[in-house]
Amino acid sequence: MSAPSLVLDIGGTKIAAGLVDAKGQLLQRNQQPTPRSTDPDEVWSAAEQTIAEALAAAGGVVSGAGISSAGPIDLTRGTISPVNIGAWRGFPVRDRVAAVVPGVPVRLAGDGLCMALGEHWRGAGQGATFMLGMVVSTGIGGGLVLDGVPYDGRTGNAGHVGHVVVDQHGPPCNCGGRGCVEAIASGPHLVSWAREQGWVGTDAKSLADAANAGDPIALRAFTRGADAIAAMIASVAAVCDLDLVVIGGGVAKSGPVLFGPLHAALRGYAGLDFLSGLRVVSAALGGDAGLVGAAALLRPNP
Amino acid sequence: MSAPSLVLDIGGTKIAAGLVDAKGQLLQRNQQPTPRSTDPDEVWSAAEQTIAEALAAAGGVVSGAGISSAGPIDLTRGTISPVNIGAWRGFPVRDRVAAVVPGVPVRLAGDGLCMALGEHWRGAGQGATFMLGMVVSTGIGGGLVLDGVPYDGRTGNAGHVGHVVVDQHGPPCNCGGRGCVEAIASGPHLVSWAREQGWVGTDAKSLADAANAGDPIALRAFTRGADAIAAMIASVAAVCDLDLVVIGGGVAKSGPVLFGPLHAALRGYAGLDFLSGLRVVSAALGGDAGLVGAAALLRPNP
Repeated sequence: MSAPSLVLDIGGTKIAAGLVDAKGQLLQRNQQPTPRSTDPDEVWSAAEQTIAEALAAAGGVVSGAGISSAGPIDLTRGTISPVNIGAWRGFPVRDRVAAVVPGVPVRLAGDGLCMALGEHWRGAGQGATFMLGMVVSTGIGGGLVLDGVPYDGRTGNAGHVGHVVVDQHGPPCNCGGRGCVEAIASGPHLVSWAREQGWVGTDAKSLADAANAGDPIALRAFTRGADAIAAMIASVAAVCDLDLVVIGGGVAKSGPVLFGPLHAALRGYAGLDFLSGLRVVSAALGGDAGLVGAAALLRPNP
Repeated sequence: MSAPSLVLDIGGTKIAAGLVDAKGQLLQRNQQPTPRSTDPDEVWSAAEQTIAEALAAAGGVVSGAGISSAGPIDLTRGTISPVNIGAWRGFPVRDRVAAVVPGVPVRLAGDGLCMALGEHWRGAGQGATFMLGMVVSTGIGGGLVLDGVPYDGRTGNAGHVGHVVVDQHGPPCNCGGRGCVEAIASGPHLVSWAREQGWVGTDAKSLADAANAGDPIALRAFTRGADAIAAMIASVAAVCDLDLVVIGGGVAKSGPVLFGPLHAALRGYAGLDFLSGLRVVSAALGGDAGLVGAAALLRPNP
């Protein structure tokens, strides 16, 4: 039996590590809160600790290491500059991991791509060949599996579907642009819109609960967000000629209050014949998709 | 010296054929108006005639055949159903061409992809590795070269950039959707918007002339169209992580009245760091890009 892969998932809230076997099973998983420090090495210590715990569980022997990171990343240099980890700007994560596990391949990709790869390998995307995996939570991100293999793009940042412009006349976005789907349909933007209409809650989970209980403002907030997401999906599908979209993340857990209007709106946008078979489904792996997908980076392409 | 490739470019207005050598030079070119017939074989006769003329110029010997066709196409079956050639629905063009040139490879792709490939090989896209080639004329279409190779998608219809939704609240589109960039920025839509504002011309060429002469309505029409095109380009670039966009087609010949506001609007939309180097340029090959690109289909992938 071959040694498992070491996997690392770096986000602004937590850093997780684990072991994944050749079949994509997550054998071990542990995590640390991402240190709120300005010292790059202090943040790295947390990552090292999670790696050490995973390596210990593997008896020190792994066949490779896969790293999923919040973006932006630079694939050429193997560095990362996660928006929500201020201490890391151009941080050489690939070299740091390679120094811990010398002699085995180390692969890096964005967290959107890893989520897509994880769902494609072991989750709701199994069997799809042209797939978008996306997350709707605090932000909106994603990754593409095209013709069965991961699509990185020129710099490793392909799949930034949160910054597809769905409304030229829409609100400004954190990216510096305007009318991006993220600026309309991310959790915080759903909440702030609902509050402007008089809803009194403060987070996306409560908004989903309210919608599921029939609150009319909360229902309209999800319908409005779903319309923006549907426009984005229709756009990406027309450009990339997809057969499947898998949606994960906190907001996607809202269920039918999101997916009902999303499917309806998508029928309105996706008019091209070749999109008639496009399916949009819920993710299956939850928060583990990134770790499983990081291991998928080490698989030979079919 | 190897034999040239036979190339065919099928559109709703004309059917062109020609010969392209191993360096991408168009050695011969001839065309016929696309017959306005409901008889599939009558339309095919026109194609056969252009093919015969090209083959005669090659002394009957070609190394392969490349076909560029207006969509939709079905790559699996090798059939085409061009929107503006009503007689052809599921027409087996690949088999028909193969029967004329037995024993050599025959490749089929959409006209958007062939335009992109032609510009990538011999035109304004030389040296780019992640490129969108697009045409703005009666409609808006395009094709993608990703990591240096043509990207077909699941059904051969990838690159339908005209149906990227840039305005959720925008006008209905011929595709059945709404707010597609084609429904705002194609030549006929620029003209109809300008006429609604009081401009009295009837075609996109006159609108460009008027804009170049300083007509304020015509200038606003191009600025408005350019904003929609910029939103689409920012979206596709964020998803596919591109380095170059090449724009051809009649409307693109309008020059600075289109490209000036397009570049300005793009700076407003493309806020992500990895898009800072994105270039948008005019196509170089004009109407021959499809024929050259059809020959590119026969090149081995790098």
